[in-house]
Amino acid sequence: MAKIAILGFGVVGSGVAEVIRVNGASIAQRLGVEVELKYILDLRDFPDSPYADKLVKDFSIIEEDPEVDVVVETIGGARAALEFTQRALKAGKSVVSSNKELVATHGCELLALARAHNASYRFEASVGGGIPILHPLSQCLTANRISEVRGILNGTTNYILTHMIGTGLSFEEALKEAQERGYAEHDPTADVEGLDACRKICILAALAFGRHVYPDQVPTEGITKVTLADVSYADAARMSIKLLGRAIQQEDGRVMAYVAPHLVRRSNPLAQVDDVFNAITVRGNAIGDVMFYGRGAGKMPTASAVMADVIDVLQHRRTQRFMTWEEGGADYVVSTDTLESQWFLRLKGTIRDLEGLGPVTVLGRPGAPGDEIGVITESMTRGELDRRLKGSAPLSAMRVLDESADLA
Amino acid sequence: MAKIAILGFGVVGSGVAEVIRVNGASIAQRLGVEVELKYILDLRDFPDSPYADKLVKDFSIIEEDPEVDVVVETIGGARAALEFTQRALKAGKSVVSSNKELVATHGCELLALARAHNASYRFEASVGGGIPILHPLSQCLTANRISEVRGILNGTTNYILTHMIGTGLSFEEALKEAQERGYAEHDPTADVEGLDACRKICILAALAFGRHVYPDQVPTEGITKVTLADVSYADAARMSIKLLGRAIQQEDGRVMAYVAPHLVRRSNPLAQVDDVFNAITVRGNAIGDVMFYGRGAGKMPTASAVMADVIDVLQHRRTQRFMTWEEGGADYVVSTDTLESQWFLRLKGTIRDLEGLGPVTVLGRPGAPGDEIGVITESMTRGELDRRLKGSAPLSAMRVLDESADLA
Repeated sequence: MAKIAILGFGVVGSGVAEVIRVNGASIAQRLGVEVELKYILDLRDFPDSPYADKLVKDFSIIEEDPEVDVVVETIGGARAALEFTQRALKAGKSVVSSNKELVATHGCELLALARAHNASYRFEASVGGGIPILHPLSQCLTANRISEVRGILNGTTNYILTHMIGTGLSFEEALKEAQERGYAEHDPTADVEGLDACRKICILAALAFGRHVYPDQVPTEGITKVTLADVSYADAARMSIKLLGRAIQQEDGRVMAYVAPHLVRRSNPLAQVDDVFNAITVRGNAIGDVMFYGRGAGKMPTASAVMADVIDVLQHRRTQRFMTWEEGGADYVVSTDTLESQWFLRLKGTIRDLEGLGPVTVLGRPGAPGDEIGVITESMTRGELDRRLKGSAPLSAMRVLDESADLA
Repeated sequence: MAKIAILGFGVVGSGVAEVIRVNGASIAQRLGVEVELKYILDLRDFPDSPYADKLVKDFSIIEEDPEVDVVVETIGGARAALEFTQRALKAGKSVVSSNKELVATHGCELLALARAHNASYRFEASVGGGIPILHPLSQCLTANRISEVRGILNGTTNYILTHMIGTGLSFEEALKEAQERGYAEHDPTADVEGLDACRKICILAALAFGRHVYPDQVPTEGITKVTLADVSYADAARMSIKLLGRAIQQEDGRVMAYVAPHLVRRSNPLAQVDDVFNAITVRGNAIGDVMFYGRGAGKMPTASAVMADVIDVLQHRRTQRFMTWEEGGADYVVSTDTLESQWFLRLKGTIRDLEGLGPVTVLGRPGAPGDEIGVITESMTRGELDRRLKGSAPLSAMRVLDESADLA
């Protein structure tokens, strides 16, 4: 019998309890022992819950109970979650988390703490919801030198973009629809401003390249400025607008990471990833490109990823495998200034105002005002683009994901 | 220092040697020890190879060398490969294989043999080339009850179908092109008749559902009868023809498995998988659908999957994890007789000959002869279809992948 505790009885926490209830028998069969949910920590009362007898409000009860092998942290945030994770690890209990904020900001120190106490700290559910990605990245792709990880990492923004493209809703309308369907939070800032994707690309970069990348080192642009006009121009160019997180290893071993909306050619499988789905592409020097696709969020998918970690930790109680990475340091993350891309620009002006921009492909869209132009430039850095624009600010400017980044 | 031997210095075997040469330093860093290639077994001579000094012709040298930890079997087939695998496992050496034929026909007994000798038998590279699929299936998705695994499992046939669709080549022309590009063997039977896909779905079914499924239990239809006319009708219906392997768990726990060309709606991500790429979708009761996509064959992708297994085995030398399954038994695999699908039919006749077939969607294609009809029927079993056809044989009959099988 293996006993676990869940911290935080919200969407994911209650999902974990449900996975144990529904799939407990098949899990026990695979694992060889039964998994028992012993405690649920939450400050709220759930008097009518079938789990009412497991609810506790004091973390010390869990911390001091030697029967608890694994603590599942689904509180979120980096305050109580950080404290309880530290205390659990120090007590020699392994911690499984779905908390991307905590991993992205404190992952390196928590992994070291786990190692020091012969425990595991695992967080498959923090990226890509139910999609197995961290585990394959840290294990199955080990024979490769990885050069880039990129992906559609946030389901809410992908839902919004998909419905702007498919049904011609404005950003605000699509956001409202996503909120009504429960795909977006009441306060959608972390999603639409790209912060959620930023945290996830930090975690992916750390695992892929071995050193921590902190969210404040990653230039992050969300989708709030994407307009229907942009979507329409992209469509005319047979591309889709997707919010991508990218982490690219440089020749010198340092890493470039950023989050921004991109125009993606329809021939690229990432362009086909719609609605709340996520997809992550890993490029290795032997394997080429591999893509992982599935539900990037949601109660049960995320809970199943949490439980997969729990099962893996329990299977290796005596031989913890130390998935780990090192501190990054201030100069480890390089700026995106040197990254060349073709650019999609939406500009106020006429074709004559494009002089100096170099060769461009001019795009059309139905109902464009006479003084609006959409173009795709040749490949250049942002600095070069700004020089050629001579100080005039485009209405929109987005990178086009380069052909060499296509899966082919 | 960990020492390995490669059996068979063909495409995959030499790829493994190359992965060690090119990525050896980064592998050593992750693994903590260096991996040394000590022997290569091949009956041929390679006097000019940089590996000439490692070549041996007698398996006993490897078998009796206590320094060899892991044997990489890339011989293929089920004769010498079977014997050497058995002998290596009996000598307590772990075996890593890319040999789908051997795993599909002898996997169950070889896994038991490995267990008995405290060794590992691993074969990530046998399905999906470089795509990590068996490992995620056996580990990351353990918290799910899996109901179906399906996929595009053969790159050669997918290349042929893609080029029939895209460039209007006949099956024979597309096959010839695939051969010229090195994507198809001189004798393409195992690919185009579906046998390769059959072996892979057997392995996937065994891992997903826990009991062995043998190739001869799996009805297998290849793509040799797919015509340009079929492709054209599918296109008109906004579908693509894809050779799919499917393994579906029934209510009673038994398994249905088969390989056949299907019409797949363009909205399904599997329809977008082109050329030599493979993709495998796993459906779990918590996670929903997850898809794994990448290069399903090729020297370096396959070699990188082999090396990932080698690294994993070396990391767990003292604590072998027993990925395993049981014997299936004669009545474990159920026939596809009860499987209902919509059917695409191409028939000789006119619309009046369709009486008795029930409601159909009539398809058109450019240049269709006057006495040819393409239709999609309502959902029914093959038996019911044959009854309604009253003995008249359609020119083509293919299942349409059902909507509920779409990722959505």
